[in-house]
Amino acid sequence: MGRWQPDARGRLAQAAMELYTERGFEQTTVDEIAKRAGLTERTFFRHYADKREVLFGGASELQDLFADTLAGLPAGTSPMAAVGTTLEVVSAEFRERHAFAQQRHAVITANAELRERELVKLTSLASTAAEALRLRGVKEPGASLAAEVCIAVFKVAFESWTASPGHTELSVYVREALAEVKTVTAEA
Amino acid sequence: MGRWQPDARGRLAQAAMELYTERGFEQTTVDEIAKRAGLTERTFFRHYADKREVLFGGASELQDLFADTLAGLPAGTSPMAAVGTTLEVVSAEFRERHAFAQQRHAVITANAELRERELVKLTSLASTAAEALRLRGVKEPGASLAAEVCIAVFKVAFESWTASPGHTELSVYVREALAEVKTVTAEA
Repeated sequence: MGRWQPDARGRLAQAAMELYTERGFEQTTVDEIAKRAGLTERTFFRHYADKREVLFGGASELQDLFADTLAGLPAGTSPMAAVGTTLEVVSAEFRERHAFAQQRHAVITANAELRERELVKLTSLASTAAEALRLRGVKEPGASLAAEVCIAVFKVAFESWTASPGHTELSVYVREALAEVKTVTAEA
Repeated sequence: MGRWQPDARGRLAQAAMELYTERGFEQTTVDEIAKRAGLTERTFFRHYADKREVLFGGASELQDLFADTLAGLPAGTSPMAAVGTTLEVVSAEFRERHAFAQQRHAVITANAELRERELVKLTSLASTAAEALRLRGVKEPGASLAAEVCIAVFKVAFESWTASPGHTELSVYVREALAEVKTVTAEA
């Protein structure tokens, strides 16, 4: 094989996910991932800092997507309208990634350390959204609460979507959860 | 000193919190906590499994309080009304504990591992609340979303309360956050 590998990153991610699913995250080595992808350990480390980053590498892009989308909406957009539009944009990013999301979810659920890391990432996402809402002029505690609702909707919708066979888009679950959170909180 | 120590548990907690604040959680040993409280290491371990439990020992009682309160409310109480009443009951438990909550918050904030543990506890609390709401007949995703809103309100209110000088009760912040989350989610 030549030095340049077409989509080495994608092949490594797929190989990693297969191995994490087959034998568990703990039991998989970087060497095995590279071998399964037909690549070297060296190439693995050119793409990922460690085997955990295959699962969490997308987190900072997701954070940027939340922040940038919230920042770019017209002034005067209400916090919940801003949250709704942002979740639509975010959902679109997952359009081709149901199989990966499903495998990733199973791997993370099976490992306490990974579950904790996922919680930390979700909390960072909520902080990012709260900060972006404050930058839009939303006062506290409104900004933090709207951000928490945003992440709660995302989390609940994402879980329903990963548990589904994948024929329905994430955005459908997001819209359902958003409508539901409005109904629930409106009740006396 | 005799074998029986009046309020050994409380004295150990106070000594631990002082030391965690003075020199950091990592740098404090159980032996030092016991000495500061005028007790033995043996007594410490009769009350706490380890030095982390001084900070998180109340978590399972809090979980029970959420579950039992939600379970005990009259049939037909709406999810949000159930959440509101439960948060009032929970707030009352913290009436005399502002100083401890404030110190605890500072100690946890300063340590990544403790912050993660706190997130895990909050997530367990959300799962407990969701399960209790499902037992009340609330359907999904409504139960999970109402539970997430409940914990978000609790978290935001608790943070405002610990950041305050302590003259205002937690329940006041809870009511403010509940009203705010209703206002925010009601906006188009």
